[in-house]
Amino acid sequence: MRVYDIISKKRDGFSLSQEEIQFLIEGYVKGSIPDYQIAAWLMAVFFQGMEEEELINLTRQMVLSGDTIDLSGIEGIKVDKHSTGGVGDKTTLILGPIVAAGGVPVAKMSGRGLGHTGGTIDKLEAIPGFRVELTKEQFVGQVNKIKLAVVSQSGNIVPADKKLYALRDVTATVNSIPLIASSVMSKKIAAGADAIVLDVKTGSGAFINELAEAVQLAQLMVKIGKGFNRKTIALITNMDQPLGQAVGNALEVKEAILTLKGQGPDDLTGLCLELAAHMFVLAQKVSSIEEGISLAEELLNTSKALDKFREFIHAQGGDIKVIDDFSLFPSSQYRVSVCSKEDGYVESIAAQEIGKAAMVLGAGRSKKEDKIDLGAGIIVKKKIGDFVQKGEALAEVHYNDQGKAQEAVTLIEKAYSISSQKVSKPPLIYQTIAD
Amino acid sequence: MRVYDIISKKRDGFSLSQEEIQFLIEGYVKGSIPDYQIAAWLMAVFFQGMEEEELINLTRQMVLSGDTIDLSGIEGIKVDKHSTGGVGDKTTLILGPIVAAGGVPVAKMSGRGLGHTGGTIDKLEAIPGFRVELTKEQFVGQVNKIKLAVVSQSGNIVPADKKLYALRDVTATVNSIPLIASSVMSKKIAAGADAIVLDVKTGSGAFINELAEAVQLAQLMVKIGKGFNRKTIALITNMDQPLGQAVGNALEVKEAILTLKGQGPDDLTGLCLELAAHMFVLAQKVSSIEEGISLAEELLNTSKALDKFREFIHAQGGDIKVIDDFSLFPSSQYRVSVCSKEDGYVESIAAQEIGKAAMVLGAGRSKKEDKIDLGAGIIVKKKIGDFVQKGEALAEVHYNDQGKAQEAVTLIEKAYSISSQKVSKPPLIYQTIAD
Repeated sequence: MRVYDIISKKRDGFSLSQEEIQFLIEGYVKGSIPDYQIAAWLMAVFFQGMEEEELINLTRQMVLSGDTIDLSGIEGIKVDKHSTGGVGDKTTLILGPIVAAGGVPVAKMSGRGLGHTGGTIDKLEAIPGFRVELTKEQFVGQVNKIKLAVVSQSGNIVPADKKLYALRDVTATVNSIPLIASSVMSKKIAAGADAIVLDVKTGSGAFINELAEAVQLAQLMVKIGKGFNRKTIALITNMDQPLGQAVGNALEVKEAILTLKGQGPDDLTGLCLELAAHMFVLAQKVSSIEEGISLAEELLNTSKALDKFREFIHAQGGDIKVIDDFSLFPSSQYRVSVCSKEDGYVESIAAQEIGKAAMVLGAGRSKKEDKIDLGAGIIVKKKIGDFVQKGEALAEVHYNDQGKAQEAVTLIEKAYSISSQKVSKPPLIYQTIAD
Repeated sequence: MRVYDIISKKRDGFSLSQEEIQFLIEGYVKGSIPDYQIAAWLMAVFFQGMEEEELINLTRQMVLSGDTIDLSGIEGIKVDKHSTGGVGDKTTLILGPIVAAGGVPVAKMSGRGLGHTGGTIDKLEAIPGFRVELTKEQFVGQVNKIKLAVVSQSGNIVPADKKLYALRDVTATVNSIPLIASSVMSKKIAAGADAIVLDVKTGSGAFINELAEAVQLAQLMVKIGKGFNRKTIALITNMDQPLGQAVGNALEVKEAILTLKGQGPDDLTGLCLELAAHMFVLAQKVSSIEEGISLAEELLNTSKALDKFREFIHAQGGDIKVIDDFSLFPSSQYRVSVCSKEDGYVESIAAQEIGKAAMVLGAGRSKKEDKIDLGAGIIVKKKIGDFVQKGEALAEVHYNDQGKAQEAVTLIEKAYSISSQKVSKPPLIYQTIAD
């Protein structure tokens, strides 16, 4: 078998065989196939796509490139959730406790943030003392005991994805639907859950801006899930503006706690209830989404979810006092308001620019090596459809590094567009895709 | 400027600016841009193509990557010829002497063979004593004196093409029309001729099998030529079977000499007359192709072309006795005939397989480092349209390495297809493309 022939086969629009995929991925991971040949293959995939069976084979080969997590020591149907990434997406912090409080085990591996989106692990580290690394035994033990653990993706999980993603990132081949699908699903499959709820975000703050592409990605991921006998469902959700109000690590954890206390923003609360309901359905806890939403609401209203969050933070070494005393969180020394220059309705928010502004302030990373300022971030005061008066704050910038504030303010100013016409609120969920 | 943005711009179908092309090629040649990013760009070009101005800019940047040959010391209009490569293509050995005998200076740099096609320089080395390397002064001096010199492409001519071609060769991006066009034309422009005749081959033995693609390539190359103020004309010629009968270095030189003596195969003689006529027209020696053909025929018939060949061989240190004594050429110890298994007409010859058979025998290289057996090769006895009787030889295999003969014979057997119906001879020239 020759790499050249495999590249040209894909270039010419043919589907690769299982053996060819295996040869390619194994060779790449062990270093016998050079970056430049894989780069050419990736670009050919960008143009020619992949067929379903081919994509399942690629995903399998990626899973096989490293370790898989065995969750069989955990009782019950383990349900995982994955978001394709957005601005202000702190759903895991709320969902996890709701679902666990409902008796469904949540054994979750999460990542760190890069670029304009944040990562759950960085957010959790805003809680003093919180440990994001557990041994396998601690991880399984904690889920068996309290139904919830969230750890940093560690060890040798899907090394093929790490290597491929790094290459895609410098060869303009990130935005390929099948490559995104195999990257996400290989990690979910390797992480061992029985069922997966996917939150596929689309809009100005997502990696995929077009609804049609998000649908295509969701369909592919659901098909891959089916190929591995994992019950998988995907929600296509709106990311045309940040989710909730808070963008930045400590700010987002505080908003998550408020949401668990029943005081969260409507969009964030609504999305968490909906995602939780789907997780309950997949875990066979309830038999309909409506039932699932009722159960999730009850767990929120009776503070059972908040209690579960407290239990979870405590189990991973975090200081539970933060839940009632926000002053214990890392904070920012300065804050400045970005004010509207006119009266009107918020017509759109370039959410990616808000994410970039947060990154500039130190809440995110432009490179993997960057250190994060856990206290920095943005509070989005006005969202799409809101009326704003001239001089009223659109957003509040929280920062420690004075040299960066102006750039963030400018990005936020540019991100907002104000209309004299009334503007309706965007939908929260576009559609649900199941097999 | 970021390579990533340049790759994604091309990936999305936009034309790159002069500055972007310069950044890419300069960075690649000096090593600051890695192979994998260029591989991704090459594959994006494969799918998205290039616009005319972009392609001229790429060609210019490639020319600027190395040295250019200054032929201003040679009097008259210097006309170069380039073939895109085929099997049994020894036209330069015949054309050069004809055109030079007509008083038009031919200062030619040629290459070595790789894969199923041979190279003029390897063929010339079949002449005992022939030197393929001359200093710049010797080269210019010889052309001024006898109007003809053929040397190996040496020194630092278009290093960008060397590097890009090596990468294309392992990333399945060789067969991109704009990349072929810029590769060929950058070398022709750097080689300094005033006018260029292109022999764009199409068919089973060419790199481009489809006529429509050959036309597209020819049009692009003519446009590039115009962009550099070089009068350029392209002939689209048939390569559905080997040109002439001989395939292999010494065998081809012998056939070239026979052709200069007026005893060559019709197709080879015809193509040489046609190409020579176009060179005479571009050099303003004659005012029509018809006149050019008459002149070329006259130079052949009066032995003036053969005399020029003798003069040329002598000037570059070759033993001119070979011209009248073929036993002085490197030869092969063994020969075997490949015979027809049925009566009928030759319907088609997979010319690339004939080229591969010659390569297997040692007449060509599968890798750059391979050593060549100058005496080995194939004599194609029956060509398309010829009638053959069962048991009659289709081809004759000349070899020294007994271990390789069987593989070559099998390739040749498979290359021929015989029909019971009469088959007409293929056309020699499909069309001529000028600006």
